[in-house]
Amino acid sequence: MNIERAAPPDGEDMERVNIAEKFTRFGEHWKPKIIAELNGQEVKLVKVLGTFPWHHHNDVDEMFLVWRGHFRVEFREKAVELGPGELVIVPRGVEHRTAADDEAEIILLEPAGVLNTGNVIDDKFTAPRGVRI
Amino acid sequence: MNIERAAPPDGEDMERVNIAEKFTRFGEHWKPKIIAELNGQEVKLVKVLGTFPWHHHNDVDEMFLVWRGHFRVEFREKAVELGPGELVIVPRGVEHRTAADDEAEIILLEPAGVLNTGNVIDDKFTAPRGVRI
Repeated sequence: MNIERAAPPDGEDMERVNIAEKFTRFGEHWKPKIIAELNGQEVKLVKVLGTFPWHHHNDVDEMFLVWRGHFRVEFREKAVELGPGELVIVPRGVEHRTAADDEAEIILLEPAGVLNTGNVIDDKFTAPRGVRI
Repeated sequence: MNIERAAPPDGEDMERVNIAEKFTRFGEHWKPKIIAELNGQEVKLVKVLGTFPWHHHNDVDEMFLVWRGHFRVEFREKAVELGPGELVIVPRGVEHRTAADDEAEIILLEPAGVLNTGNVIDDKFTAPRGVRI
């Protein structure tokens, strides 16, 4: 059996990864890009603008860390406003949606292979998995 | 059986965590502090100055991301110099040491419970595990 493997991201080769430079490589919103993988987890970058659909992830916690701009993680009971250098953990099973009134740049951390819209399939927002930059 | 559990870090309560503010809470070098936990992984902050012992971690990949200052991850074959917003992955089993000529602030990502000196016990550098701020 011949299993092809995508080229590893820079980080797997013990190479420096510059986050700002990686953000210059794409412009689209809500489409996460993998920049590093470790211990079955993926570090991803995503640009966001507008409001994402409500969803949750079974058995997966997510971390959102703001790199640039302002970003909001909404839960059914409250909203958490984040600026640069601020993060929040969304525990598994907790319904949430994310939003940004102006474009923001976010660092995501979650297990490999997570679908961005969780339990929901959305024509506009569901993004391909496994995209590396 | 009564298992006590330490108070969760802020991130587990869906609260905002401000990285800069967390770094103001301690001054010692080479003693990682947990600021968030997810999917069996820990996000830690560490201040560094000087040179850490050579070591490796069996079955554990580590990510080093520079928050402030300049930081060097040395391997037997090369060294990777990192500035703010730059990261490197140290794959499991790979011998390495870290160094900073001036104080630097680093964000660490690795599985929960990792000993900072890996396969080595060092009177000066081996740090307690599970310390949250």
